[in-house]
Amino acid sequence: MAEPLFDRLCLIGAGLIGGSIARRAKERGDLAREVVISARTGKTLDRVRELGFADRVEESAAKAVEGADCVILCVPVGAYAAVMAEIAPHLKPGAILSDVGSTKGSVIRDLEPLLPAGVHLVPAHPMAGTEFSGPDSGFATLFENRYVILTPAPGTDAEATAKVREMWARCGSMIECMDATTHDKVVAIVSHLPHLIAFTICGTADDLSEETRESVLKFAASGFRDFTRIAGSDVAMWRDVFLNNRAAVLEMLARFTEDAQAFGRAIRWGEEDFIVDRIQRGRKIRKELIEHKQA
Amino acid sequence: MAEPLFDRLCLIGAGLIGGSIARRAKERGDLAREVVISARTGKTLDRVRELGFADRVEESAAKAVEGADCVILCVPVGAYAAVMAEIAPHLKPGAILSDVGSTKGSVIRDLEPLLPAGVHLVPAHPMAGTEFSGPDSGFATLFENRYVILTPAPGTDAEATAKVREMWARCGSMIECMDATTHDKVVAIVSHLPHLIAFTICGTADDLSEETRESVLKFAASGFRDFTRIAGSDVAMWRDVFLNNRAAVLEMLARFTEDAQAFGRAIRWGEEDFIVDRIQRGRKIRKELIEHKQA
Repeated sequence: MAEPLFDRLCLIGAGLIGGSIARRAKERGDLAREVVISARTGKTLDRVRELGFADRVEESAAKAVEGADCVILCVPVGAYAAVMAEIAPHLKPGAILSDVGSTKGSVIRDLEPLLPAGVHLVPAHPMAGTEFSGPDSGFATLFENRYVILTPAPGTDAEATAKVREMWARCGSMIECMDATTHDKVVAIVSHLPHLIAFTICGTADDLSEETRESVLKFAASGFRDFTRIAGSDVAMWRDVFLNNRAAVLEMLARFTEDAQAFGRAIRWGEEDFIVDRIQRGRKIRKELIEHKQA
Repeated sequence: MAEPLFDRLCLIGAGLIGGSIARRAKERGDLAREVVISARTGKTLDRVRELGFADRVEESAAKAVEGADCVILCVPVGAYAAVMAEIAPHLKPGAILSDVGSTKGSVIRDLEPLLPAGVHLVPAHPMAGTEFSGPDSGFATLFENRYVILTPAPGTDAEATAKVREMWARCGSMIECMDATTHDKVVAIVSHLPHLIAFTICGTADDLSEETRESVLKFAASGFRDFTRIAGSDVAMWRDVFLNNRAAVLEMLARFTEDAQAFGRAIRWGEEDFIVDRIQRGRKIRKELIEHKQA
């Protein structure tokens, strides 16, 4: 077995992602000698104790981070500023501070101003998940063969970045580095906009008259079914994602809406060539995705 | 084995749906004593002969329908008017004319005016499919546990409707009857709009600058991946669906666009309650779908 990467790993939050990191850490012992978890509610803390995937459970985030070599925020990104205000004075000099949030510009905005000297910020985004949430939903293999994007600022301690990279590599992930702005644009189109669309179309269907609505539920074809799968995701997490990747999501929504309106206009006026072109482009992207082995 | 429903079943078109009906018919022998197939191109005809799922293959649709008890149009709905003009004079008195198109108002519009006296029109829409197309893509079990919607006009011969119903029941499908207008609205929201969105978002992604686009392909998370799966569908079929369910698709697109814009506005102005409400509605519809055992 590889030597543990950290003496003490602290996770703030024990939902799908935090719970999965903890399970992975406990299962193989190569991430940390000790896993400390803090969660906001007594109910979650009790459940973490019952599930037994932490060595120690703390109500206070400030107390949880004390003496930890690595602290990972695993809460909705909207909670980062408040959590940081609480934990910053208690972070160990030389510690690594990381996270798992789906937005990265907002993370740097909320964490960097309070970062104590000598604490290394290495933001991370594991692109893994299911439509389930909470302490029961995690599993040790969640990150295997999934991308993790790191967005360390230029000048970040190379050793700290290397350790976070190694942690995710041990979880079975593929690691990429990019700047926070590029990250936020990419996830806006590949993940945030599709979720916005999925939530929206469910509401649109829900508003249909009672008779049609019953049929919608009954005949939901594969298209709609795929859309609703991702609409099952965690409420607080997604609220915070939309609010904290505002600019990129609005840009992608605007681009998409223009394109959808153009498609609608082509349908209205029977512009066959335009419609065929759009369908063919969809097939082309699909083919490229398969070639990228992501399909 | 049940007595065959028809002496001669004629399929116009041998793509995913036509090829699947033919395979099912040949496999069990309980749909028809003889399966005749006509296709538009010599290439498809040759392939059907090689694959051997027809008893007879005809280049001429007019010749193919001669003497058939049941004729099923399995071509893109945009081709119905031309096919009908060709076959109408050759339909056997007492024959059943059915189809498998995804739009039903347009089907009645295109077929009914040319319907010979004594021929029974029973439009049908099997809600089954994959993202593949062509004579090689079909399989005998495609329709098992899938809905088939029948939209016979009031006053249609009850025996003819019952025979089409029985044919699909033997294919393992669940059969529902409704009027063509309701059908077209329901499929607009559960299938046509999701496809329009999928084709569109692929194009939106394709238009992003080269660097971001590469990352989009690389990091396509589950949201985008689900969207692109349905974007792999057949070009001519989907072109015709959009053009032939114009009113319902445009209505659903307009409703959806209003809702998406409202979501975007809430993100811009930080309206948390609105965003949370939309996410929760998505989860609610998802839950109802699961309860309807469609998820």
